[in-house]
Amino acid sequence: MITQLFWIVPVASVVALVFAWFFFRTMMKSSEGTDKMKEIAQYVRDGAMAYLSRQYKVVGIVFLVLLVILTVLAYMGVQNPFVPIAFLTGGFFSGLCGFLGMKTATFASARTAQGASESLNKGLKVAFRSGAVMGLVVVGFGLLDISLWYVILTKFVYTTEHMANGFQFLGLDLVHQGMDESQKLLEVTATMLTFGMGASTQALFARVGGGIYTKAADVGADLVGKVEAGIPEDDPRNPATIADNVGDNVGDVAGMGADLYESYCGSILATAALGAALTVNNTGADMSGKVIAPMLVAAIGIVLSIVGIFMVQTKEDANAKSLLNSLLIGTGGSSVLILAAIAGMAALDWITWGIFGAVVSGLVAGVIIGQATEYYTSDGYKPTQGIARQAQQGPATTIIDGVAVGMYSTWIPVVTIVGGIIASFGFAGGFDNFAEGVYGIGFAAVGMLSTLGITLATDAFGPIADNAGGNAEMSNLPKEVRERTDALDMLGNTTAATGKGFAIGSAALTAMALMAAYMEEIKIWLKRGLNEGDTVVQNSIQFVLDSSTQVGEGIKAVVISEATLKDFSSFYDLSLFNPLLLAGLFIGAMMAFVFCAMTMKAVGRAAGSMVDEVRRQFKEIPGILEGTGTPDYAKCVAISTKGAQQEMLLPSLLAIIVPIAVGLVFGVAGVIGLLMGGLTTGFTLAIFLNNAGGAWDNAKKFIEKGNYGGKGSDAHKAGVVGDTVGDPFKDTSGPSLNILIKLMTMVSVVMSGLTVAFALF
Amino acid sequence: MITQLFWIVPVASVVALVFAWFFFRTMMKSSEGTDKMKEIAQYVRDGAMAYLSRQYKVVGIVFLVLLVILTVLAYMGVQNPFVPIAFLTGGFFSGLCGFLGMKTATFASARTAQGASESLNKGLKVAFRSGAVMGLVVVGFGLLDISLWYVILTKFVYTTEHMANGFQFLGLDLVHQGMDESQKLLEVTATMLTFGMGASTQALFARVGGGIYTKAADVGADLVGKVEAGIPEDDPRNPATIADNVGDNVGDVAGMGADLYESYCGSILATAALGAALTVNNTGADMSGKVIAPMLVAAIGIVLSIVGIFMVQTKEDANAKSLLNSLLIGTGGSSVLILAAIAGMAALDWITWGIFGAVVSGLVAGVIIGQATEYYTSDGYKPTQGIARQAQQGPATTIIDGVAVGMYSTWIPVVTIVGGIIASFGFAGGFDNFAEGVYGIGFAAVGMLSTLGITLATDAFGPIADNAGGNAEMSNLPKEVRERTDALDMLGNTTAATGKGFAIGSAALTAMALMAAYMEEIKIWLKRGLNEGDTVVQNSIQFVLDSSTQVGEGIKAVVISEATLKDFSSFYDLSLFNPLLLAGLFIGAMMAFVFCAMTMKAVGRAAGSMVDEVRRQFKEIPGILEGTGTPDYAKCVAISTKGAQQEMLLPSLLAIIVPIAVGLVFGVAGVIGLLMGGLTTGFTLAIFLNNAGGAWDNAKKFIEKGNYGGKGSDAHKAGVVGDTVGDPFKDTSGPSLNILIKLMTMVSVVMSGLTVAFALF
Repeated sequence: MITQLFWIVPVASVVALVFAWFFFRTMMKSSEGTDKMKEIAQYVRDGAMAYLSRQYKVVGIVFLVLLVILTVLAYMGVQNPFVPIAFLTGGFFSGLCGFLGMKTATFASARTAQGASESLNKGLKVAFRSGAVMGLVVVGFGLLDISLWYVILTKFVYTTEHMANGFQFLGLDLVHQGMDESQKLLEVTATMLTFGMGASTQALFARVGGGIYTKAADVGADLVGKVEAGIPEDDPRNPATIADNVGDNVGDVAGMGADLYESYCGSILATAALGAALTVNNTGADMSGKVIAPMLVAAIGIVLSIVGIFMVQTKEDANAKSLLNSLLIGTGGSSVLILAAIAGMAALDWITWGIFGAVVSGLVAGVIIGQATEYYTSDGYKPTQGIARQAQQGPATTIIDGVAVGMYSTWIPVVTIVGGIIASFGFAGGFDNFAEGVYGIGFAAVGMLSTLGITLATDAFGPIADNAGGNAEMSNLPKEVRERTDALDMLGNTTAATGKGFAIGSAALTAMALMAAYMEEIKIWLKRGLNEGDTVVQNSIQFVLDSSTQVGEGIKAVVISEATLKDFSSFYDLSLFNPLLLAGLFIGAMMAFVFCAMTMKAVGRAAGSMVDEVRRQFKEIPGILEGTGTPDYAKCVAISTKGAQQEMLLPSLLAIIVPIAVGLVFGVAGVIGLLMGGLTTGFTLAIFLNNAGGAWDNAKKFIEKGNYGGKGSDAHKAGVVGDTVGDPFKDTSGPSLNILIKLMTMVSVVMSGLTVAFALF
Repeated sequence: MITQLFWIVPVASVVALVFAWFFFRTMMKSSEGTDKMKEIAQYVRDGAMAYLSRQYKVVGIVFLVLLVILTVLAYMGVQNPFVPIAFLTGGFFSGLCGFLGMKTATFASARTAQGASESLNKGLKVAFRSGAVMGLVVVGFGLLDISLWYVILTKFVYTTEHMANGFQFLGLDLVHQGMDESQKLLEVTATMLTFGMGASTQALFARVGGGIYTKAADVGADLVGKVEAGIPEDDPRNPATIADNVGDNVGDVAGMGADLYESYCGSILATAALGAALTVNNTGADMSGKVIAPMLVAAIGIVLSIVGIFMVQTKEDANAKSLLNSLLIGTGGSSVLILAAIAGMAALDWITWGIFGAVVSGLVAGVIIGQATEYYTSDGYKPTQGIARQAQQGPATTIIDGVAVGMYSTWIPVVTIVGGIIASFGFAGGFDNFAEGVYGIGFAAVGMLSTLGITLATDAFGPIADNAGGNAEMSNLPKEVRERTDALDMLGNTTAATGKGFAIGSAALTAMALMAAYMEEIKIWLKRGLNEGDTVVQNSIQFVLDSSTQVGEGIKAVVISEATLKDFSSFYDLSLFNPLLLAGLFIGAMMAFVFCAMTMKAVGRAAGSMVDEVRRQFKEIPGILEGTGTPDYAKCVAISTKGAQQEMLLPSLLAIIVPIAVGLVFGVAGVIGLLMGGLTTGFTLAIFLNNAGGAWDNAKKFIEKGNYGGKGSDAHKAGVVGDTVGDPFKDTSGPSLNILIKLMTMVSVVMSGLTVAFALF
């Protein structure tokens, strides 16, 4: 039986970590090049570590505050007592991944430049396998944390003995006397689900803070360096250039990694919780099988992602297309292998064919969204070329056309996600049994993220290649080296764009699964309220329990007490016409816009400080522009770091406080409305921002290739305006929406006990 | 009893039309000025009429097609047989309002300029009272159409005799034998509701077509005339200048008028339908009172709006602030008088105090949204000034800051609408009885729109003042005249911005009421299906009927047949977790973005043709730039007209087809999801676009006043880029979303029979 295969999960996670270590060692053994290259790399490394240590300090304080709050809530009886500890491990492992990924990336950039000076294939290999370190630590630590908690909870807390006699923990009656197997699984998964809160909080700081950092440095470096002083990109005379290179790592390695770590753990944990809910009225043989299944799919995904990583090779005379192909062979190969393995699981009856269908839906949806993103943002296709053509008429038409392209581009991803949700729901049998269908949606998320080991490798590859280019430029390496790193960099831009589509797509599915799990949490808390013995409440709750899972089931119970039902109905009624739910829906839509506005403003302010600092250095440090004086790189890094951490506080607080407040004021219905409104509007808005930004970026590059007048023409100037507008769109506000969507859901899950307590008492 | 006061409704509508006629005659008697002024005015008039006649031709074809479809559906038994005729009257009266409003506005512009040459007060009066013609014909014809249909249906179709014996119409069994009073009211209001479809179709063409027209002409005139040829705004040498002036009328008079005509009729009709639904299980004395009440509130609003119009006066030495104050006295005065009158109605027990509360909620919400709009778009406040400051750093930061301001500005309107919905729902007793609460939301919409007679006057005043300025410029009137018209024009810009907030706010509430009415329509069609005698379906339907109105009620009926319930549940289940509803929600959010993208692209293409034409005329017509040759104004008007009508086809078809398709594929739940998603995302997106556009416009003007370098500085150039980007935001895409939101709902209402038939058979 599948339950006996659980050992595969921790083993796979360890395998991932071993290979990550192996790839890291191999990379470290290759040469870092000349002294100049080492020096530049050291600057970037120092900057990155300076950023991380400051971020972790701030995160530490926030974790401490949240820890206290969660502990107090636990002692008040409206929070599971394991949550404070689970919360910490989730945050710790996510932070560790960020640290290791950044360390690797900053060690790899000079080595990639050195590799590229030997051959293109060598450069690609160093960069890609260093990116794979990030991919593998994320999936490895993610699954390891899940395995550890599962073992601890099932082997030491919810034991047969405890379930017979009851079990107290920190003075709290944790395992009720006579608890049965299905109740146990519910409690275990509900506890584990909340460790995602730690990952979410970490992701918030990494993604939003990283997004602000990278664009503040970028815009600051460009505005003064390129535009005012007229020195080229990545010129060592520009004091902000190291901060700019650090920013690539901060945003695209640590930020993207933490974002996807959250999705990865969230999707597996939510699906496990939904699986546990399935077992409640189903006293079949293999109850824990439904809980372990998503972990097993993830474990298989890890192993086959590693196989895929080894498949990435290229020939020496590779052009842009064949470079992209070699990556596609890796990711596509993993996907096909995973599908085959999952089909095998279904053939062996470990999972149903319906679940196989759900996993396929998720994987295919991920691929389609990625391809659509490429179509709308690559200069090989009409939309981006159209923006470049409009650039001839000036910046205004460039902006209007880019906005139109971005807005229009939302249709394929939305239709794909809708198709993925309905297909996975239907395949899993949701039209006969709602709960099975929701479990299927969870598997779609797990399926989409099963290739994360290699997908994240292609993402993290981007900034490494970009930094390698910067290193080559600053170290005055021969032109052919820069050409090779440019080829790698261009490839990285493509994978970054598709990676963004993948990140928002998986965020949407993860949020869906988390929302369904939220309803399970609410039920658990309501059932605890039920034990209080209040029969009036009991009837209403019974209705709530069932109306939220399935329309028909709970109705018999409700008829007992129709009058009381009404009092509670608007608080829990998930009908779209419930004005409390509607209020949530509106507020959710608004949150997406306001959060974007705040992060955009934050970039503007942080970039402003950077501009001032760079101007100051140009004025005050003698010989800086002649190349005889050394700029104060560290000061610029410090400014970006400080700006990012300060500016992210307000939007972050909003994302945490609003779902709690909505829960207290508008109840469960309001929360579900808020989350759904945030999800649908946030998803669409994020795609608009990402794709508009990507298209502007590439439209500018398309002009720089010599089209419509090429570099220096009026069209190019208009293109630069578009690119600058697009920077915060695609690198700050757009990706931050992933976090908003998931964090609001996770906060609601963790605070569900409080919401229920406030409503009941 | 309130039923006996119905006569007030047609009388008020006739009073409105009489005063409209009076204001028109008064305006026509004042002098049109010099021959040159008359000539310019004639050009604009000809252009406006050329546009209207072409639009009405296209609209005529569309109406013919829809008429055939609706008639066929009626004969298939899935459409009320009166709908095709009702549809026509709705469209006809809306079109008539557009024609009269445009005619008045184009007659008034030269007279306003002439008036301004005498005194500022004279200019204000001519312009404002001409605007009042538009306001009064809209409310007059709207309420007249409603009164006529109500009389026809209740006095000639659903008579006591017919209800006893049955009544056939065109071979269809329209009035069933033994129909009771409450059924009759349901049928009457359901029939009337669909005449809104005619108004919606007309509004679609007027608002979307008008929005494309006005910006194509504006951008075309600016890009070639101002930027390339370097001649000032409104210069008669620019061939596109007449088209530009026509555009102001087309967009802001006819477009805004048709938009609000639709909201006005839609809100009254939807509230009446919800009132009729209330009477079904309530055999109290005064059943038709609930149907007539919203009409009566509207009628009182008309009379007191006229009083408000007479309150608008100004002193000769008026500055910008006192001009605005004189308008505020008019609109504020009307609001206060209306509130007093409605309070009187409540005191006389004609309506409940709860309904009074709902009306107050709507009125107050309208005022708050208007004030918030002013704060975020007026150069007297920080947000717009901040954009102007950012303009010093170039166009990119101008755009980013404007986007951030626009997105941020969504919070007050969203919170206000949420507050308005919950307050009106709660005041009307919705937390005890859901149906009463929804009826209250309808009254919030009616309340907000009760001041329409004067609010629309302040809107239509804007383009008249703008055109007066254009006329003064082209006719070389003395500088002081232009200064006076400029003062009026600036006032018009403010009222235009608040008017847009008012339009989207009322669209949101109207759509809410329409959606609730949609569920009533679905019930009526389901009941017809019920008569087929299929008991299996009957049970499912019974559940649907009640779950949509109130959680508790229908449950007893469902228990009978739990098995069949499941088959239908996902099709009708309005729980937010129903994946079909969720699909609709996502698609609705996407529709808002895609619709915006399409209208933006449309402006780009239409403006492109205009640019080509103006360039051609500058090259081919000799002496045109020296002022000796006459430009071919008509050609430019024709190009804008043709472009607008062509470009709007695709987005329009989308708005009509998508709700029908979603209904057929995803059922009632999918439709409700689509409408709610479209509403929440569309509302927020529209506010973002309107306010960003308005803020850019005024930031540019703020710079032109001499701030940050004034006219000609780099900041000014950046400001112009922002303004140009904002043009399609605020005048095309943003306002078009009002139409999208309402039209999708109206199409769903009219096609509800088809949706049900497709699901049942």
